[in-house]
Amino acid sequence: MTPPVAAVSRPSATGPGPILGVVGGTGPQGRGLAARWTQAGYRVLLGSRDPARAVAAADELVQSLGQDAAVTGHSNVDAAAASEIVLIAVPYAGQRELLAQLAPHLAGKVVISCVNPLGFDKQGPYALAVPEGSAAQQAAALLPGARVVAAFHHLSAVRLEDLTTAEVDSDVLVLGDDADAVDQAMALADAVPGLRGLYAGTLRMATQVEALTGNLIAINKRYKTHAGIRVTDA
Amino acid sequence: MTPPVAAVSRPSATGPGPILGVVGGTGPQGRGLAARWTQAGYRVLLGSRDPARAVAAADELVQSLGQDAAVTGHSNVDAAAASEIVLIAVPYAGQRELLAQLAPHLAGKVVISCVNPLGFDKQGPYALAVPEGSAAQQAAALLPGARVVAAFHHLSAVRLEDLTTAEVDSDVLVLGDDADAVDQAMALADAVPGLRGLYAGTLRMATQVEALTGNLIAINKRYKTHAGIRVTDA
Repeated sequence: MTPPVAAVSRPSATGPGPILGVVGGTGPQGRGLAARWTQAGYRVLLGSRDPARAVAAADELVQSLGQDAAVTGHSNVDAAAASEIVLIAVPYAGQRELLAQLAPHLAGKVVISCVNPLGFDKQGPYALAVPEGSAAQQAAALLPGARVVAAFHHLSAVRLEDLTTAEVDSDVLVLGDDADAVDQAMALADAVPGLRGLYAGTLRMATQVEALTGNLIAINKRYKTHAGIRVTDA
Repeated sequence: MTPPVAAVSRPSATGPGPILGVVGGTGPQGRGLAARWTQAGYRVLLGSRDPARAVAAADELVQSLGQDAAVTGHSNVDAAAASEIVLIAVPYAGQRELLAQLAPHLAGKVVISCVNPLGFDKQGPYALAVPEGSAAQQAAALLPGARVVAAFHHLSAVRLEDLTTAEVDSDVLVLGDDADAVDQAMALADAVPGLRGLYAGTLRMATQVEALTGNLIAINKRYKTHAGIRVTDA
C-alpha cells in the first residue's frame, strides 16, 4: 500500500482558491489531475456519471493524501454546478451528450478541455476528425457563455497518479481566446510541482495539440515509456 | 563577420556517408539544416529553383564552415537527381508543382519532408487543410516509389543558422511507414549536436506534427523566443 502523502497548501494561497470540478473524474486523466490539485491544496469536486464511483475514487484519494485532502465525489452535473473552474476529462465519444446536460451550469465559468479525439486501429492511434475542428472547439460550441480553454492533454496519467513521483516533468500547452481564462489554466498547471503552463495559441490551434497525444502514444509504445513534452527556450 | 567554424567529420564515418540533397535549400530551414549537415561532414547538394542563388548560398556556407565544407549549389532537379537522401524544404504552396518535376529522380530514395502547411491571418498562424492529410502524405502520393518520411519540422531556423550555437536543443519527431527510412532520418538528426531523432508514429500522424509548428510560432511570439520541443522520459 502506498504511504499517505501530506497535502500541501498552495504557497501563494491567501484564502480558499477556486473550487475545481473534474468532470469524468474517475478516468485516469481526471483522477490523476484531481489528485495533484488536491495535493496542491485546492478544493476538488470529483464528478462521474455514476456518483457512487466518484465517491469511491474521492475516498481513495483521501486515503492516499491524508485527512486534510479536500476532495469529494459527486455526479458530473453536481460537480460542474458547484465548481468555479471545471475540467472536462471525459472520452471524446461521450462529450457531446454530456456537455448538453452540463451547459446550463457552465455559463460564465472557465472550462478546461483535456479531451483527445483519438481512434485506434491495427496501425495504432489516429486523430479523429471533429466537425468543429477540435474537442475544445466543440465544447465551446456546446457551452454558450463558457470560457473554454484547451490544456493538460499530454500528461501521462501513470505519472500523475503515482504520487511517489514528486515532480511531473512536463509542460502544459494552454490554448484559448480568453486571456484571463488562459491565465487561470496556466496557474493550475504551475500549481503542480514539475508542470509549467505555456500559452500555445488560440483555440483553433487546439486540433493538433489534441492529436499530438496520439504521437505520444506511439512514442510510448516504441520507447516503453510515459512521454511528456517540454518546450525548449521558453 | 562570423569567424570560420571548422567542419567536423562524423564520428562514426567509415567512408563517405550518403549524399544529401536539400530541395529548397535557400530558404531558412533548408539553409540551416544544410549548414549543420555540412558541418557534420556530409556531402550536401543545396538546391534552388534558381541555381545561381543556390551557388551563392553554398559559397556563403563554405565561407562560414571552411574550405573542407562539402556543399555546392544546384538546381532543385539536379540536387535531387544526384543525391541519395533528399530533404524537401520548400513552402507548402509550391510543393505540388515542384514534386511533379522531381518525381522521376526520387523513386527508391529516402525523401524527408519538413514542410509545414500553415496560413496566417489577423489571429496569427493556422493549419491549412491538406487533401492528402499532411504535406508528407501529399509528397508520398506525388512521388511513386519514394520512401517518404516526415521530420525536422520544429527546429528554429534562427538557431540552426547561427553556427555559434554549438548545440540545437531540440528533439526531432520522425514519422513514417518505412522503418529503414525512419532510421536513416533519425541518424541525420543524431548527427547534429543537440538534436535527437525520435520515432513518433506512422506517416498519417504527420498532420498534427506539421501543424504544431503553428503553436511554436504562437509560443515564440508570446515569449519572444525560438522554441523547440523535447520529449521527456524518452
